[in-house]
Amino acid sequence: MDIRPEDPTQLPTQRRVRLLTQNDRLFHVILAQQFDRDLIDQLCRIAEMIRIIADARAGAKFLNTILSHKRAMLYFAQPSTRTFLSFSAACQVLGMPHNDVRDARTSSEVKGETEDDTIRTLSQYFDLIIMRHPGEGFAEHMAHMLNGMRRNIPLINGGSGKDQHPTQALLDVYTLYRCFAESLVKRIRPEPDSNLFEGKTIAFVGDLKRGRTVRSLAYLLARYGGMRLLFVAPDELQISGDILEHLERNEIEHELMDDLPKIVGDCDAVYMTRLQDEHDADGESKKIDLSRFALTKDMSHLFKPDLAILHPLPRRGELDTALDSDPRAKYFDQMRNGMWMRSALIAYIFGVDAVILDHYYSYYNF
Amino acid sequence: MDIRPEDPTQLPTQRRVRLLTQNDRLFHVILAQQFDRDLIDQLCRIAEMIRIIADARAGAKFLNTILSHKRAMLYFAQPSTRTFLSFSAACQVLGMPHNDVRDARTSSEVKGETEDDTIRTLSQYFDLIIMRHPGEGFAEHMAHMLNGMRRNIPLINGGSGKDQHPTQALLDVYTLYRCFAESLVKRIRPEPDSNLFEGKTIAFVGDLKRGRTVRSLAYLLARYGGMRLLFVAPDELQISGDILEHLERNEIEHELMDDLPKIVGDCDAVYMTRLQDEHDADGESKKIDLSRFALTKDMSHLFKPDLAILHPLPRRGELDTALDSDPRAKYFDQMRNGMWMRSALIAYIFGVDAVILDHYYSYYNF
Amino acid sequence: MDIRPEDPTQLPTQRRVRLLTQNDRLFHVILAQQFDRDLIDQLCRIAEMIRIIADARAGAKFLNTILSHKRAMLYFAQPSTRTFLSFSAACQVLGMPHNDVRDARTSSEVKGETEDDTIRTLSQYFDLIIMRHPGEGFAEHMAHMLNGMRRNIPLINGGSGKDQHPTQALLDVYTLYRCFAESLVKRIRPEPDSNLFEGKTIAFVGDLKRGRTVRSLAYLLARYGGMRLLFVAPDELQISGDILEHLERNEIEHELMDDLPKIVGDCDAVYMTRLQDEHDADGESKKIDLSRFALTKDMSHLFKPDLAILHPLPRRGELDTALDSDPRAKYFDQMRNGMWMRSALIAYIFGVDAVILDHYYSYYNF
Repeated sequence: MDIRPEDPTQLPTQRRVRLLTQNDRLFHVILAQQFDRDLIDQLCRIAEMIRIIADARAGAKFLNTILSHKRAMLYFAQPSTRTFLSFSAACQVLGMPHNDVRDARTSSEVKGETEDDTIRTLSQYFDLIIMRHPGEGFAEHMAHMLNGMRRNIPLINGGSGKDQHPTQALLDVYTLYRCFAESLVKRIRPEPDSNLFEGKTIAFVGDLKRGRTVRSLAYLLARYGGMRLLFVAPDELQISGDILEHLERNEIEHELMDDLPKIVGDCDAVYMTRLQDEHDADGESKKIDLSRFALTKDMSHLFKPDLAILHPLPRRGELDTALDSDPRAKYFDQMRNGMWMRSALIAYIFGVDAVILDHYYSYYNF
Repeated sequence: MDIRPEDPTQLPTQRRVRLLTQNDRLFHVILAQQFDRDLIDQLCRIAEMIRIIADARAGAKFLNTILSHKRAMLYFAQPSTRTFLSFSAACQVLGMPHNDVRDARTSSEVKGETEDDTIRTLSQYFDLIIMRHPGEGFAEHMAHMLNGMRRNIPLINGGSGKDQHPTQALLDVYTLYRCFAESLVKRIRPEPDSNLFEGKTIAFVGDLKRGRTVRSLAYLLARYGGMRLLFVAPDELQISGDILEHLERNEIEHELMDDLPKIVGDCDAVYMTRLQDEHDADGESKKIDLSRFALTKDMSHLFKPDLAILHPLPRRGELDTALDSDPRAKYFDQMRNGMWMRSALIAYIFGVDAVILDHYYSYYNF
Repeated sequence: MDIRPEDPTQLPTQRRVRLLTQNDRLFHVILAQQFDRDLIDQLCRIAEMIRIIADARAGAKFLNTILSHKRAMLYFAQPSTRTFLSFSAACQVLGMPHNDVRDARTSSEVKGETEDDTIRTLSQYFDLIIMRHPGEGFAEHMAHMLNGMRRNIPLINGGSGKDQHPTQALLDVYTLYRCFAESLVKRIRPEPDSNLFEGKTIAFVGDLKRGRTVRSLAYLLARYGGMRLLFVAPDELQISGDILEHLERNEIEHELMDDLPKIVGDCDAVYMTRLQDEHDADGESKKIDLSRFALTKDMSHLFKPDLAILHPLPRRGELDTALDSDPRAKYFDQMRNGMWMRSALIAYIFGVDAVILDHYYSYYNF
């Protein structure tokens, strides 16, 4: 019954981005490609301000009023506790009431409803939909469908299919941003024209083939340039060709390798990832020896003093819990940064970022 | 162990209504029979005011404070995403925190508790219970039980058994009200003594036998009169005799028919419904040819320019998605109206409707 | 991978209590042993003030702002509707947004994450974790783990394993406190040096062996002394030796018996409990005749006029619903008291109890 328009994922990137924009401003958040360097910088600044403001009781209460007149729907057709809770906490930071559909069984789909109609319905009750869905391109399809409704509301992709998870990439950039700003200039706010990533060496380690996190992050880093990227993985799990092509086109220095201990001492940041064996066809990745791609406490004598260790979590054996108490372990901060970055993104979409900037500059001088 | 009083559903209607009343005011909301024309009109007016007030940021924030000192429990023993979310959003509109029990497995019933005791417990933590339950007359039983507690709190029936779903009927009347007010007088508020339904032709189409929605709505419309009702369904699914008797007793013009294209051009409103085959004993309704009871895009040349198309949703094949972009499609507005009407009802029960009226008349003149 | 420190439950009590303390103040709430008489008294006073303040609309709105800048996580790995809702309502009373993980299936544990890492993650998004878990000592382990995090947040045990459920014991003391204060002095607030339990006879009835409720409550009552405790149970389900030893060490008068009707007339409070047959190894408790351990309406002529009947609920046959309308039935008040006591505890942990006291003394004189 539902007549789908042409597949949006087949359109040229520029047109895809434009269809997600309203009044020259980000509206639906679906693709990493929507973010250029200026926008990433701005979102990092807003996230940082929210983080600082929220630290004081009065500031937290101010933030709580910013979107109290809006309502969000968290539609999670694919389970993900941490992404769910991060978005949920982000809504709470901004005082935005929200609700969720986390379980298909409680849904009207048992009565034979299409998922398109479910989203159409949700768009009547809420002012924002945050969606996680296993379907490739599903979130983008839904954004287009909402564009055709009399009541069009923004949609944020909280993970769609195998390749797109833009808010994870944003929070990762923000985390690197904070780590490098601390270690370099000990100041919160970089000069607008500086590039904190200049001269940095960043290693990505683990299952680089199937982790969408690394793919999206590589994409965003290419907006900055100036850094050197090391992809450390067994051959079977190395980063795929399209990313390498993209890096070449953008003249980003990079190298493929398979020996973590050998290069860990050169790194300013190490981004660890777990084996994505849920995507195995037939348990093939179980046969791969991953011991050389684990970061352990006994390697820490090799680390630079300012190294930043990241991991999107959940982790398994590839990241030693004995490192947790090392001040260079930034992966729990990274989680918390996700909450601030998602708050910033939501504030930006609703155009209340100006209110935050205004509050920030009234109370904090520097 | 639980001693149930006499079955309340066997009492005369007047007595049933009185048992749900406190201080001459609606307290528990269980039956469509509790609503007379004055009360329906008043609830439509409050809903309309809430809708208009909520449209402005300051207004939305004002509404958010109205019931922030109360708490609601949504007890949904029967899954229903849209009714659940509509009530949930209504609570959020009024700033009332709420919680839910949606899944029997997470409940103490596994420890051998009776459902009566569950409701007694909930009444200690919350100030309002909104309940959806498969049991015939269950909500009414629970309302009586609460009347016997030291702490008596109001209960709203969000769908009980096969026949009662009063808030759906209210939102349907409110939707017709808005459609007819727009098309007739282009004003929001009808004169108190006018009857917007006078001279209107309203068709109900589909599974009229088993859809409680149509039953309750026919009941409420009979409070107004002056309209003509057409029941368009295959013989096996026609509206049942008790409704027809009720319409006759109230001298409402009505007709049974089985040809939608033939009469669609006469209609001011068409209320579509889906096949309720979950109530089939043995898949018998699968054999019925429903193609003549579908509303499709290619029939739209027959429609009056001011036709209002309604559907309680979820839909299947009986309502063409190609009609969604037709301005006469009102079914998504209808969903949203549900949120406003439920807000109005809750506000009314807690006696804060006066605060809303007061705010409205202070800010909006007409 | 996770390296657990020495088992905290094997440490001496004093050291266990100290590890849960920060700045000489309660931080993590894990054990009944953390509460001495002064602290129990103070929490009862705060609970009582919250209850009175919340009764007025303006007061409820004041309370709603107290912790609106904090966020709580309710991590319930073990289902419990009423404890869950009681904590949830307590958060709402204080205006603290909260979220929950109630279902392991929606969690990242399917991706192979340890529960330790789940709690570490949650500690990044929230300011308080309220946890219910089947694992013996699990909550205490987690509190120690949080102590080792850069971001340490308080953890409240909402029921852990077979023996510890400290907030239930607190609400039970608070309920007795209110009952005895009403019946004795008709005043809300006892003199600081009076002991409301002096000379009282309190019977515990039912499955005393396996109900952790009675165990914890006996522990707290021993902080007061002066009362007489009767343990009324069949031999197989009598209270265990460690509790009796503890009472002896604290010189609390107590007696074991198996005839409820014989002693019910002597009691100032009767604390009923249900059969905990979910802990049966092989249905052995089904064979026990419990009819002599039920409280029924036809025994009410024996009751003292000021008797207080308590039950932690859910109940089965051991507590006659016909007693519900007797003013001496306090078990529904007891539920509601749980909400106030949990609010008081949370307020105390965050150090905002002073704000509540201040508000109370500004508005209420006595």
